[in-house]
Amino acid sequence: MNPESHDPLARWRHLWPHRDNQTVFRETLGRLFDDYCRWHEHWQGPLSERPPADNRPLLRAIELLDDLSRRLQADSTPWPAPQYLAHMNADPLLPAGLAYFAAMLYNPNNVTPEAAPVTTTLEHELSDDFCRLFGFDPQQGWAHLTSGGHAANYEAIWIARNLQRVPFALAEGNNPQDDARLCNLPPREIVARLSHALENAPPERLRARIDALHDHPALRGGRILVASGRHYAWDKCADLLGLVLEPVEMDASMRIDIAALRERLFAHFKAAYPVVAVIATAGSSGEGSVDEIHRIVALRQECEERFGVSFFLHVDAAFGGYYRTLLQPLIDEDACTAPHVSGVLKPEVVEALQALCHADTITVDPHKCAGVPYPAGCLAIRDRRFSWAISSQTRYFRPSFSRHMEHGPHTLEGARPGAAAAAVWMAHRLSGLHRSGLGALLAGNALTATHLHHALNAQPAFLLDGVAHRFRSMFAPDLCIVNFCIHPAEQVVLNARRIELLSERMIGNAQLPGSGDEKLPWFSRNRVSLRDIMPDAVRRETDETDDTTVVRCCVMKPVSHDAFAAFLRNSLDRLFARIGGRET
Amino acid sequence: MNPESHDPLARWRHLWPHRDNQTVFRETLGRLFDDYCRWHEHWQGPLSERPPADNRPLLRAIELLDDLSRRLQADSTPWPAPQYLAHMNADPLLPAGLAYFAAMLYNPNNVTPEAAPVTTTLEHELSDDFCRLFGFDPQQGWAHLTSGGHAANYEAIWIARNLQRVPFALAEGNNPQDDARLCNLPPREIVARLSHALENAPPERLRARIDALHDHPALRGGRILVASGRHYAWDKCADLLGLVLEPVEMDASMRIDIAALRERLFAHFKAAYPVVAVIATAGSSGEGSVDEIHRIVALRQECEERFGVSFFLHVDAAFGGYYRTLLQPLIDEDACTAPHVSGVLKPEVVEALQALCHADTITVDPHKCAGVPYPAGCLAIRDRRFSWAISSQTRYFRPSFSRHMEHGPHTLEGARPGAAAAAVWMAHRLSGLHRSGLGALLAGNALTATHLHHALNAQPAFLLDGVAHRFRSMFAPDLCIVNFCIHPAEQVVLNARRIELLSERMIGNAQLPGSGDEKLPWFSRNRVSLRDIMPDAVRRETDETDDTTVVRCCVMKPVSHDAFAAFLRNSLDRLFARIGGRET
Repeated sequence: MNPESHDPLARWRHLWPHRDNQTVFRETLGRLFDDYCRWHEHWQGPLSERPPADNRPLLRAIELLDDLSRRLQADSTPWPAPQYLAHMNADPLLPAGLAYFAAMLYNPNNVTPEAAPVTTTLEHELSDDFCRLFGFDPQQGWAHLTSGGHAANYEAIWIARNLQRVPFALAEGNNPQDDARLCNLPPREIVARLSHALENAPPERLRARIDALHDHPALRGGRILVASGRHYAWDKCADLLGLVLEPVEMDASMRIDIAALRERLFAHFKAAYPVVAVIATAGSSGEGSVDEIHRIVALRQECEERFGVSFFLHVDAAFGGYYRTLLQPLIDEDACTAPHVSGVLKPEVVEALQALCHADTITVDPHKCAGVPYPAGCLAIRDRRFSWAISSQTRYFRPSFSRHMEHGPHTLEGARPGAAAAAVWMAHRLSGLHRSGLGALLAGNALTATHLHHALNAQPAFLLDGVAHRFRSMFAPDLCIVNFCIHPAEQVVLNARRIELLSERMIGNAQLPGSGDEKLPWFSRNRVSLRDIMPDAVRRETDETDDTTVVRCCVMKPVSHDAFAAFLRNSLDRLFARIGGRET
Repeated sequence: MNPESHDPLARWRHLWPHRDNQTVFRETLGRLFDDYCRWHEHWQGPLSERPPADNRPLLRAIELLDDLSRRLQADSTPWPAPQYLAHMNADPLLPAGLAYFAAMLYNPNNVTPEAAPVTTTLEHELSDDFCRLFGFDPQQGWAHLTSGGHAANYEAIWIARNLQRVPFALAEGNNPQDDARLCNLPPREIVARLSHALENAPPERLRARIDALHDHPALRGGRILVASGRHYAWDKCADLLGLVLEPVEMDASMRIDIAALRERLFAHFKAAYPVVAVIATAGSSGEGSVDEIHRIVALRQECEERFGVSFFLHVDAAFGGYYRTLLQPLIDEDACTAPHVSGVLKPEVVEALQALCHADTITVDPHKCAGVPYPAGCLAIRDRRFSWAISSQTRYFRPSFSRHMEHGPHTLEGARPGAAAAAVWMAHRLSGLHRSGLGALLAGNALTATHLHHALNAQPAFLLDGVAHRFRSMFAPDLCIVNFCIHPAEQVVLNARRIELLSERMIGNAQLPGSGDEKLPWFSRNRVSLRDIMPDAVRRETDETDDTTVVRCCVMKPVSHDAFAAFLRNSLDRLFARIGGRET
């Protein structure tokens, strides 16, 4: 037996450039280009005469390209570096980039199959991939690519907001008592009513009735509820769609506080106040924390049983969605050498990822965790009939709700690069959306992050500016992001301002350009509230804010976790030395 | 003197693949790839061990790439073909695609310079390019890339809608008489008040006041006015932002009817009804028609003088914006051999393009007319302080309004491919945004389209199904799109249904896959109202709609117009024969 088969990451190594595979990738790249040139020559026809003898424009093009390449080499952010841990960006798979390039040459636009016959077909295949990944029925749901997480989130909430108008458009008369009942109907009941209505009424007329309700008093001030540590995209989203963003308290794991959410929802339902959506996050951008989606699903069930009302559940899994590959077994499970999910993720995170199948819509970004270059976001929709609520081609969108919908009229965006579909398709096919494929890679990241968390807290005290200090990892990571700080070892009352200064000292030294030490780690910063994150440890001082800056560290490296954890410890040692720390 | 210098298109020929330049582009491509591999090897560090001996994943990657390439070659839409005239898509410049690829390898994300140091700088250079192209002051305005025209349009109207709240947030008290005056203030006055207020109040507090006004009664049901032949993106936009779309009548040139617009605006202003924006189109997608922006600007002036109120003017120049290069002279104007704009475009189209400098925001898509692959849209903003209205980082956005704003918090979108900035930058640098550069290319397209228009109308009658028929071009093109139909020669009363059937017959035969005749033209369809387009010719028949389908033909070829016009006539002859037409 080949010893490499024990290492689930071994199969990945060929998909990044190495001295050994560069020649074969370079040859392939040349072949893709030659294919394109043949196609171009076939179609360009007799009108494209021989280029003129004056080849200065050609020389200028080559000069600009070489110049661009030099600048990129000199100053690009070094994603491939093991010491780069600052932002949520992995080094993309080289074949995904080559697939993007191959398709881009033919310039497909997936707005319509007429402008992209090949890559639209690939995007339809991806729709099935995403449905299966999240446990949606591919016969009933659908998924499509977007320019990124922002667009996917906007579209989801746009759908949720418009769905709320449907029951009012279908209701006869205007009874205020009805309004209270209608404004928070379960989404599945809304589409059931909609489907029924579409069998009996012309869609255009129904659509006009819905549009006319855009300012219905019973729906005014509709809310979206999301954890207070939200990404700023959610503030943009609420403003854009004319909704009220209601921040919900967080627990010490930086997840939405379910008790607080429950209390808020009950109050809204009792007051017949429109709740447009509850937004759960699977992988918050600052902390990588995963809201307890299973408990939100249970809460939804409770609301339906107690009040007969419900809410639209959107999960922003832009970052964490692909971690559900850890739950996807191989057919030949006995031969699988990848770690089992129970040894990688916390039980409640596993439950949360399992419960994704009960969400109404899910955002996931292939350009974050699937090794695909920008731009590649995705919105997955549990029931494709939801999209009727935003469709601008209702007349072609009969109750049958075709499985392969044209993208332009049924999504937020218009023109879109077919090349992105080719890149995601390539990454999915090569990595495999299961625990021995992409799951093994992500498991490695999560294990490394957990290791780093423990290592930081176990680090002995050290001297900084003559005073004993300690490291503190703020919480055990749900996925692969660690937040940590330095604070005086003896201080029981944590001082937000002092923590902030020490964090900035670490981050600033870490990323010092031209420091001459390329081995220093690259970190980013995160703003947290000490009260959220360490409710017991903090005693407020007068006039002092709880908000502080901590060091944020995203572990997204295609290496086995024990080797990388050792490297990380060494890297941190260099940093301590740099900021003037030494052993006690 | 070199005879080629007389042909303004000669300098372009090297920028598409030709047998003669393929070798040098292929070598450059290899060099770009090698540069990346060197960078990767430098950064990847000791953790990336030698790849395992089992190279099946590598072989699988190569196999998938070659397979993808074969599918793309076999079935892609043939943009380079002279007979391809269906959709608004030109064959991109090869160096722009190579620049995209070169940058994509380093996976920059222009959401923040930290994730894209090189390409964010390029995007800032582009901001100046776009400001100069449209006649905005680069010191005062700014421009940024978007995923496409949809996102740019959404952002523009989002800005316009939020700006309307500012005067209410700044006003003391709640006087309904004030409301009437405040709801349609001139945008430049709004930002003047805003700037003043920001000098004296914390931005966060002001922002909170503005957000609290999202449902202010005086601003409810705000309208956007746009020509009735609008792109469906505008229906999406109004719905998304909770606004009312008010379609304005069109004239026989398929442009917004200025008299009708005037009447509607006056009525709204008299009723103190909020007008969020007037949307002018420079290059409608069906017809390429250009609204008379100069007359809308004059109308705005009139409103300000008569009523003291105004409106936000957004121009959707996704398609037509780059035609303003025809108005940009070279420094050495005497040496310019390109046709002068007065010999290319109608006087009112020239005036409209000139007046773009008076718009508040302009959408333009480099992926339409600048020879750049998808995705590349752009929003240009006359006064960068407008963006404050949608900024989610008000605290970093002081009255100074920095010239190089971070993209994420001050625009609609989040993550965005830095590679797109590299591609647009390359296209701008190579083609030149002036009349001897990109302008000469676009002039060629416009001249060919005008030629085709006249040729169709001059075509002698021919027999089809035994009856004499004629071609009719629906209007003289403003830019490079021709709409035409076939109708019975003797019929005075045009029959919408008959025209539709004949159009479908032409389009269907033209694009017949596997027809064996690759020289047949590719067309698309456009829906028009005969009443709009030929108000005199049409007599309604009972119960009959005026809506019909005509043949749409986009001329976007990098060839000199006389050679191409001759080719087009020949191509049409083949089509007549195919659908069974013959000479009388």
